[in-house]
Amino acid sequence: MTLPTGATLTLGEIAAAIGGTVQGDATARISGIAPLDRAGASELTFLGSKKYVPQLLECAAGAVLITPELAESPGKCSNRIVVARPQEAMLTLLPKFYRTPARPFTGVHPTAVVDATATLDPDVTVEAYVVIGPSVTIGAGCWIGSHCVIGEGVVLGARTRLYPHVTLYAGVKIGERCAVHSGTRIGSDGFGYVYHEGVHHKVPHVGGCVIENDVEIGANSAIDRGSIGQTTIGAGTKIDNLVHVAHNVRIGKLCLLAAGVGIAGSTVIGDGVTFAGQVGVTGHVTVGARAVLTAQTGVVTDVPEGEVWGGFPSRPHAQAMRGYAALSKLPEFMKRVERFLKAQGDEDKKT
Amino acid sequence: MTLPTGATLTLGEIAAAIGGTVQGDATARISGIAPLDRAGASELTFLGSKKYVPQLLECAAGAVLITPELAESPGKCSNRIVVARPQEAMLTLLPKFYRTPARPFTGVHPTAVVDATATLDPDVTVEAYVVIGPSVTIGAGCWIGSHCVIGEGVVLGARTRLYPHVTLYAGVKIGERCAVHSGTRIGSDGFGYVYHEGVHHKVPHVGGCVIENDVEIGANSAIDRGSIGQTTIGAGTKIDNLVHVAHNVRIGKLCLLAAGVGIAGSTVIGDGVTFAGQVGVTGHVTVGARAVLTAQTGVVTDVPEGEVWGGFPSRPHAQAMRGYAALSKLPEFMKRVERFLKAQGDEDKKT
Amino acid sequence: MTLPTGATLTLGEIAAAIGGTVQGDATARISGIAPLDRAGASELTFLGSKKYVPQLLECAAGAVLITPELAESPGKCSNRIVVARPQEAMLTLLPKFYRTPARPFTGVHPTAVVDATATLDPDVTVEAYVVIGPSVTIGAGCWIGSHCVIGEGVVLGARTRLYPHVTLYAGVKIGERCAVHSGTRIGSDGFGYVYHEGVHHKVPHVGGCVIENDVEIGANSAIDRGSIGQTTIGAGTKIDNLVHVAHNVRIGKLCLLAAGVGIAGSTVIGDGVTFAGQVGVTGHVTVGARAVLTAQTGVVTDVPEGEVWGGFPSRPHAQAMRGYAALSKLPEFMKRVERFLKAQGDEDKKT
Repeated sequence: MTLPTGATLTLGEIAAAIGGTVQGDATARISGIAPLDRAGASELTFLGSKKYVPQLLECAAGAVLITPELAESPGKCSNRIVVARPQEAMLTLLPKFYRTPARPFTGVHPTAVVDATATLDPDVTVEAYVVIGPSVTIGAGCWIGSHCVIGEGVVLGARTRLYPHVTLYAGVKIGERCAVHSGTRIGSDGFGYVYHEGVHHKVPHVGGCVIENDVEIGANSAIDRGSIGQTTIGAGTKIDNLVHVAHNVRIGKLCLLAAGVGIAGSTVIGDGVTFAGQVGVTGHVTVGARAVLTAQTGVVTDVPEGEVWGGFPSRPHAQAMRGYAALSKLPEFMKRVERFLKAQGDEDKKT
Repeated sequence: MTLPTGATLTLGEIAAAIGGTVQGDATARISGIAPLDRAGASELTFLGSKKYVPQLLECAAGAVLITPELAESPGKCSNRIVVARPQEAMLTLLPKFYRTPARPFTGVHPTAVVDATATLDPDVTVEAYVVIGPSVTIGAGCWIGSHCVIGEGVVLGARTRLYPHVTLYAGVKIGERCAVHSGTRIGSDGFGYVYHEGVHHKVPHVGGCVIENDVEIGANSAIDRGSIGQTTIGAGTKIDNLVHVAHNVRIGKLCLLAAGVGIAGSTVIGDGVTFAGQVGVTGHVTVGARAVLTAQTGVVTDVPEGEVWGGFPSRPHAQAMRGYAALSKLPEFMKRVERFLKAQGDEDKKT
Repeated sequence: MTLPTGATLTLGEIAAAIGGTVQGDATARISGIAPLDRAGASELTFLGSKKYVPQLLECAAGAVLITPELAESPGKCSNRIVVARPQEAMLTLLPKFYRTPARPFTGVHPTAVVDATATLDPDVTVEAYVVIGPSVTIGAGCWIGSHCVIGEGVVLGARTRLYPHVTLYAGVKIGERCAVHSGTRIGSDGFGYVYHEGVHHKVPHVGGCVIENDVEIGANSAIDRGSIGQTTIGAGTKIDNLVHVAHNVRIGKLCLLAAGVGIAGSTVIGDGVTFAGQVGVTGHVTVGARAVLTAQTGVVTDVPEGEVWGGFPSRPHAQAMRGYAALSKLPEFMKRVERFLKAQGDEDKKT
């Protein structure tokens, strides 16, 4: 998350910074960056691919970063900076126009309630109204946003950031350089009950929850602790908003879980797996490393390594798509076959 | 959200208020309003449509609002008020029996932590434990519920209400007369990473998030800020609980998004679009104005203006329904055709 | 949620506690319990079913609880305790190794803001930064976690626990022995609007929300209040994370709702209904008692009592599965029939 720096740069200064060449007015001033179809007169944009060339015609940007090949494309915006890789150049310019808010202070806000047995590195930021329980350990450089609640025995590795309103239940372990967005809950009890004589008896949840290094988790997600054994999220995995990870799930390293994904209990996800939005995975199955699950897939069996799967019930994506394509032709096909069968004297007794 | 006023009215008083005519005991007393199948002896109910006439037989209400056409329908409840439009009449009676809780005080609760550079209109209510960051602007008549966290540079228009536990990330702009329910997060970073040499590198999120006037957002939803450019929600749009809106999405005016909807990055939604529950929309597509997406639709392409679409993958709703209807007959149809083909000597080599 | 007690027991002591017989070293020491595939040298595990016998080969546990029938199965772990029902025995051992954190104190934390008109039993725990509104009643043994916000007129029955960051809107009633996990919102306004002359007018929500005894609700769920009449959750029902229950929904007793489920307005759910993950139910339908809805089902009609339904649109599960099985064969089947028809001279005019 970033905010404007308030800086303005001329096209000449920008071209110098990225090794590009100005076409047009090198003294024009730029104060921000915006997409091709929304940039205004004080903003820089970029043409990332040939596909968007038609948008140049209506582009109202102050200037556009553009490749040599496309530099002469017609368009309203005549100020251009020619550069080999416009999108990469744009990324290197971002820090000139936008700043990541720094930790507002070092130390513990006077309103935070910190248990006497907690161990906080001197170089931490603990914002207003944070509650930190007994035996918690917080590493150097951590930034704990307002209103976070950190339960007994939690461990946070160095430079991890919790945005406001995060809850970590007792015993959760989070690695270094992680980010957890607002409203996410980690280590809540899983959904486990045994029905006996008219009552759903709760299965005790004695397990924990381990989030390895460099994990980012979006807003309002929920990751349950293990019943016995841990729920684990592997290093470098990124999780979007409103994702559910059930008890005892093990997610590998470098996975991507888009918004709305739900993974049921004890399922094992290999390294590098990609989940598109709203995918659901049943419990006690294995999704092999580097598998890709397309949007809204309902996974009900194991998924082999490296394959792209989709549909409900889940199957190889290409096969699922062939099925759906055939389905769209099915009503006409059935009518035609019915006509043929009728002509052959094969009447359907049932209709 | 409302609470009882504690008032009781006679049927005579109620009939006078709505221009209706009493059948039965005009001195009977009413203290609340309830649905036809749940109303008790002190409650008023209404018969909204012919379809519910059979429920009158068991209706235990103190009185029923009813149209002239249906006024003689048989039923346990003999006290009736005859009126042309029972449901509208009921809505006008609500304020007599229920009150919207008023702001409990004007001003800033002593426990709120408000940055010295924030600008609050004198006529605001800021409840307990609210945290307001630098350079925030809050308009007249705003009501900020307990525990809300409002980041640097946020702007709230007049008479907007945040229910408890809302988080607004830095730079978010919200219009006038909006309502944001408890636990909703606005302006969190989007889910954007570039994979390079064994690491998912985070795409900086320099964009903002703009919520126009008269928007209501339900509980525990999450609306991401833009990566570059804004995420926008158009005026008068209403969003339900647990909805995900990704970075750079633009939603038009007067849309309705039911619970569980997820919209992926950079998608553009026209004005007046209706999303039923659990619809998912892929990234970088356009949904035309006044389109309707039925429940659980998986939108994977553009949707034309004004059309009703459904199914997965998305297609015109009627076509999707014809496909599903055909599918339900498919197993029998295949058996029948197999029999026919076999009789013709056309054996399936594969089975 | 539990934490380790720090106790260690010998296999001899464990066997005595559960009426089992030690095979191997009765003096070996155990300090925790873990699943078969993750247990280490100081941990006890159990073999719950024949299906997992192969996992014994690689099992690194300090000891395994095992039935007499399977006691001689080959495996790395030679320390075994033979017992008739290993899983039940394991559950009875949990309290020796894990403890449920007790209420940290009795009384009201000095930072809690409690309205003077609220009635709290003397035997309650109200943690830091809780906000309790006017006319609230809280029963004996309740434990209100940090940062909960409890609106005007809320009633909590005895021994109910709210985890941190729960919001209860005004007027919500919760029974005895309930548990509500972190971030769940109860009693928010439902999603009801009437479109009139260019505006979505909000339907007033004068109803309430009643949660009966022994209900547990997971993290970040949202349960709306009624528009008129109540939203109700029956006694003994258990609800998982990220579940949406809309206005006026009535859920029976002893139901199970897994994560990601959404139920639209005014729908009625009988007793003992099971919802697998990500099921959606449309509004104004009835799901009969003891029905089972399989994962991702899209319920669009009434569901009869006691039946297992699945698919979209919902139908009996077995029928849905036959349809999907047929669909997976459809592309090949259509090609074959096309070939046959072509050979018969019946050309498809449309392709």
